[in-house]
Amino acid sequence: MNPAELQIVVLKLDHRPERDKRLTTHVGLVARAFGATEFWISGLQDPNIPETIHRVSSQWGNRSFQVITGVKWQTRIRSWKKDGGDIIHLTMYGLHVDDVISQIRTSPHPKLIVVGGPKVPIDVFRLADYNVAIGHQPHSEVAALSVFLDRLFEGQILHRKFPDATLEIEPTPHGKRVTESD
Amino acid sequence: MNPAELQIVVLKLDHRPERDKRLTTHVGLVARAFGATEFWISGLQDPNIPETIHRVSSQWGNRSFQVITGVKWQTRIRSWKKDGGDIIHLTMYGLHVDDVISQIRTSPHPKLIVVGGPKVPIDVFRLADYNVAIGHQPHSEVAALSVFLDRLFEGQILHRKFPDATLEIEPTPHGKRVTESD
Repeated sequence: MNPAELQIVVLKLDHRPERDKRLTTHVGLVARAFGATEFWISGLQDPNIPETIHRVSSQWGNRSFQVITGVKWQTRIRSWKKDGGDIIHLTMYGLHVDDVISQIRTSPHPKLIVVGGPKVPIDVFRLADYNVAIGHQPHSEVAALSVFLDRLFEGQILHRKFPDATLEIEPTPHGKRVTESD
Repeated sequence: MNPAELQIVVLKLDHRPERDKRLTTHVGLVARAFGATEFWISGLQDPNIPETIHRVSSQWGNRSFQVITGVKWQTRIRSWKKDGGDIIHLTMYGLHVDDVISQIRTSPHPKLIVVGGPKVPIDVFRLADYNVAIGHQPHSEVAALSVFLDRLFEGQILHRKFPDATLEIEPTPHGKRVTESD
């Protein structure tokens, strides 16, 4: 599966700026690095999240990656469904990722990946085409999203390079090497 | 690789209780769920983290999972090295996980997995046997740890069950089903 060919949007539910700032930022950074094209955040508006993620994209590439805060999840999910896209909700209560990932990978439709917080409305479970468990233990939406996307792209997304990067890492066994271009 | 046979400790560097509470908790929850035996946290003491993680273990199992805050990373890393254990530091500057994971998996030694924050001392890079990049993009220590452990256990850790759990999820396509035992 080639990430450039597929629209993948990550939707984080119920962002609370004070409490969730860093976790939501990490969800967004994973979305950007692991093959999503946009990151939507429902709950309160919070300009800090797009600013932080755009700062990363301006150096490390993927400047077209969009971040939108303050979206209404009901409207976005319903409209996605109406347009024929797949809705995938990551939750420990769902079906095990190993039992559904091939089906999700094979489906040619754009994918909206929904990650929650502690209290996800039951409507999200109902509206999702797939409720997918990254194991059935409580852990983290950051972990769930990263493992899901790693599996979706069969491990290849971790080799992705962004042509518009100005900073690039030269892998090294014991230190830091970064090359900078204009 | 059977998680019960291998000592895996996760060390989170430089915890700041105010700022990092939720992210460090997520690192610990991933450690607990993805096959580690202990979670060590350097930086300031913070009783909230062990409390939260133990509360999860008391319901979902793995009560022997240890959480220790306020450790000195220098002492712990040096002593681990002296005892012949492997030290694995997750950093985007390291070697790509795909190039080193088989070697790490094959090594029979206990593993100390170090995850940082924004400013990791250069000594950590020097003391680590392996500096491992979960891709060479900035994202999240929670993502790095979860993908690393998922790969280390070849995807099988997400099927782990804890015999001492009182709550267990019955996977379901559209809702929540939990069974409770004494």
